[in-house]
Amino acid sequence: MNKIFLVGMGPGGPEAMTPAAAEAVRRADVLCGYTLYVKLLEERFPGKEVLTTPMTQELARCQMALERAEAGKTVAMVCSGDAGIYGMAGPVLQMAADRKMAGYPPVEIEVVPGITAAVSGAALLGAPLMNDFCVISLSDLLTPWEMIERRLRCAAEGDFCIVLYNPRSKKRPDHLCRACDILLESRAPETVCGIARNIGRDEQEAQVLTLKELRDAEPDMFCTIFVGASGTKQIGGRMVTPRGYEAKR
Amino acid sequence: MNKIFLVGMGPGGPEAMTPAAAEAVRRADVLCGYTLYVKLLEERFPGKEVLTTPMTQELARCQMALERAEAGKTVAMVCSGDAGIYGMAGPVLQMAADRKMAGYPPVEIEVVPGITAAVSGAALLGAPLMNDFCVISLSDLLTPWEMIERRLRCAAEGDFCIVLYNPRSKKRPDHLCRACDILLESRAPETVCGIARNIGRDEQEAQVLTLKELRDAEPDMFCTIFVGASGTKQIGGRMVTPRGYEAKR
Repeated sequence: MNKIFLVGMGPGGPEAMTPAAAEAVRRADVLCGYTLYVKLLEERFPGKEVLTTPMTQELARCQMALERAEAGKTVAMVCSGDAGIYGMAGPVLQMAADRKMAGYPPVEIEVVPGITAAVSGAALLGAPLMNDFCVISLSDLLTPWEMIERRLRCAAEGDFCIVLYNPRSKKRPDHLCRACDILLESRAPETVCGIARNIGRDEQEAQVLTLKELRDAEPDMFCTIFVGASGTKQIGGRMVTPRGYEAKR
Repeated sequence: MNKIFLVGMGPGGPEAMTPAAAEAVRRADVLCGYTLYVKLLEERFPGKEVLTTPMTQELARCQMALERAEAGKTVAMVCSGDAGIYGMAGPVLQMAADRKMAGYPPVEIEVVPGITAAVSGAALLGAPLMNDFCVISLSDLLTPWEMIERRLRCAAEGDFCIVLYNPRSKKRPDHLCRACDILLESRAPETVCGIARNIGRDEQEAQVLTLKELRDAEPDMFCTIFVGASGTKQIGGRMVTPRGYEAKR
């Protein structure tokens, strides 16, 4: 029915995927996404046409999904976490508008939200996001590194808790170290930080450490990083940011 | 079994609540939270002891929940959205640590994440959070207004997309207007913004408008506000932030 659902699967297995997301996948004729995520869903929702592309072929994947929807199909495009946070919702909405302008049949697009790593990682670590926070990706594939540096400085200046996505990639192994050096210009080395790894999987891990220790940590691509605000504390092994005035008690 | 689940219910009805969250509620002996949310769950999960308090009695609610868990019960403390984002996870973890130090029986605490309004509101509006973003509450009940102003200026300086929680309350009807004036110091009046209202309910609404229009809008307490970054666009009636370099095409 000329429709694309952009479905956030959440962080791990089926227990973290909302009933609305599962229903969107169930209704779809075509399942589309990064190979690993589609494989996980095929067992649960068998008998669908499957379109997969490697991780770097995002725009090709959008186009394939739009072509199938233009041909009358209902397509579920699945992303881990949420499709609207560094996911596929933006490119699909942009390309759909471009193609409609170019005379292709219109496609209805619905974003079905999922639990992003900032939220699931925070739950695993304790309660680091009880007050205002920023989310910044350390990948400079699509954003210039200078812009990332500027955002890190602004986030530090505003005493936000900071969530770092994509802390490490093969090509740029030192992004987290460089980010920590920038934050250390204005934040104390003892600032409470956290690493959430493999969130929602059997092997999930939470580690609470200082900003100084984080600088020399070597997280992999399955990690999400949390840098506390000045008031963030380690309480009973968890990372907790007081909500505000109560910090003063 | 001396346990508290801090359960995020997501934005609306049962279709937005993860199976993990529903399972935590099912396992609980005691259901605890703001009266409205507990009422919604009682019909679905009958036969539980229920503890409710009015919205302003957060710390009293934490203590009641901890006392029941210390007495051997499993308690589900429910929050709309996510319990770790301006929710009850922080106060419960802090109070639990204090009480354990004071000699009360230890209580296990598990945060079960839910879909917060930044994520569900973004899905409703399109894809405003495809690049780095900040979440700021405009409530000065627990954070001094000067700190909120500073964070707004830093978020504007970093060209973040900004999500505003608690844009309005009875006592401070002009917070959103004042926030917009601060953002207008450095952002164009034409900056694309969005209002998501009653997310996940039958009467949900999404409105895309300019920052200048937002300044004079009068959203109620059921709204979450999105202020775009400089690259954010209105595309086919939706609010979309390009992911980065692609904005230049």
